[in-house]
Amino acid sequence: MIQTQTDIRVRYAETDKMGLVYHGNYLTWFEVTRVEMLDILGYPYHNLEQEGYLLPVLEASVRYRRPAFFDDRLTIRVTVKDKPIVKIHCEYEVLRHEELLATGWTKHGFINPQGEPVRPPKALMDLMASHF
Amino acid sequence: MIQTQTDIRVRYAETDKMGLVYHGNYLTWFEVTRVEMLDILGYPYHNLEQEGYLLPVLEASVRYRRPAFFDDRLTIRVTVKDKPIVKIHCEYEVLRHEELLATGWTKHGFINPQGEPVRPPKALMDLMASHF
Amino acid sequence: MIQTQTDIRVRYAETDKMGLVYHGNYLTWFEVTRVEMLDILGYPYHNLEQEGYLLPVLEASVRYRRPAFFDDRLTIRVTVKDKPIVKIHCEYEVLRHEELLATGWTKHGFINPQGEPVRPPKALMDLMASHF
Amino acid sequence: MIQTQTDIRVRYAETDKMGLVYHGNYLTWFEVTRVEMLDILGYPYHNLEQEGYLLPVLEASVRYRRPAFFDDRLTIRVTVKDKPIVKIHCEYEVLRHEELLATGWTKHGFINPQGEPVRPPKALMDLMASHF
Repeated sequence: MIQTQTDIRVRYAETDKMGLVYHGNYLTWFEVTRVEMLDILGYPYHNLEQEGYLLPVLEASVRYRRPAFFDDRLTIRVTVKDKPIVKIHCEYEVLRHEELLATGWTKHGFINPQGEPVRPPKALMDLMASHF
Repeated sequence: MIQTQTDIRVRYAETDKMGLVYHGNYLTWFEVTRVEMLDILGYPYHNLEQEGYLLPVLEASVRYRRPAFFDDRLTIRVTVKDKPIVKIHCEYEVLRHEELLATGWTKHGFINPQGEPVRPPKALMDLMASHF
Repeated sequence: MIQTQTDIRVRYAETDKMGLVYHGNYLTWFEVTRVEMLDILGYPYHNLEQEGYLLPVLEASVRYRRPAFFDDRLTIRVTVKDKPIVKIHCEYEVLRHEELLATGWTKHGFINPQGEPVRPPKALMDLMASHF
Repeated sequence: MIQTQTDIRVRYAETDKMGLVYHGNYLTWFEVTRVEMLDILGYPYHNLEQEGYLLPVLEASVRYRRPAFFDDRLTIRVTVKDKPIVKIHCEYEVLRHEELLATGWTKHGFINPQGEPVRPPKALMDLMASHF
């Protein structure tokens, strides 16, 4: 299992007139957390792209349980529960201290800069596999 | 069944360095389409809020099948398949002409400005029910 | 002089907890209006990029006079007052019916995909010059 | 003089298809830096709003000198050069290590939740004045 977490502070720009965080922004927080997960694994996303791999989101899902507010200090925890073979499946929890605000997941596959599906980079897959 | 659709033109701001639309923006397009659906039903979202109702997103999900690009003219179609009782369940299709780019759904419940769940406004529910 | 205008409807995602449009979003509306201006001129931005030109923003400025709200129908008017030689200078007005909500301007220069400044494409400059 | 700075890491969502940061996002970074400046001064923006003050942006301006890229670690420095009397004038520098990427400024005034201009909160103005 791979599990890392990232601290986020809610920006004013991320709120909407409901006084809460606009729901679409959780997907951006998930992205920030994935990027840090790859850093911690030792394979920064930036390097992936330099080697000609893109890792788009194929599916994304969020369940909003309690609202997040401007200036909240949140922890976004990402978990990869199953050893990735071709796709990478990430699960997320959005926490304000101990309080669970939202959960979600994303599924990813590798493509080349021409947009064609490609095999995952072996080095990354080996690195991820070493955690299972 | 309720079904309406909205035309969208992809903004430069909505793309990312992958050259495609950033995945989080689909949730904004879904919102734009829901707002127009309520207009077409004859109960603008704006009115809902003036009457003290908020309609936050409780769950959201998107499946990205093919990329959308800057300047694409897209049609976002929203469908409410089941007569809403307490929650409203919306399904979406993102189309470029006949090509299906993405599908998704959102689930909504009513709250008051204090954030407490409330019964849906009867007038809107009756209006929606008349389509089933 | 070149002058075109674009109609915008304010999205929920564009508001913030102040209940108004988040100020950064005006720059996106300016972009949408510029893109339509190039369409109307007969030289879509999309074509520019296909020919290897990028037209980044070098400077941007906005003066917010009155707030814009969710669901407002706005008109964004763009004016190019001076015949562009190397840089393009655009001025903007954000209007709600007759009411002037904001003014702004942007300055643009051409670069190639490697990020190097390049001479403007002659065809576009000739096309723009024909309006002065 | 008041001067504080905030570290930012560029998010994927903040880039556009030009491969650079979308220019509108600098205004969000300025906001994040202002919020931290108020924290450091000892008067969090959050408290301001709880006391019934809003501090909207009246004018904003950015000059983009060099591009910022995904994953860049940037420092945003905010400076208040003149003791604020009624308006607050903030100047910004966006730095990648020693390299100056952009400069900008914003002007702010206080309003109440009804949108009417009000006198600045004395406690904050005294606090700011103590730095001049």
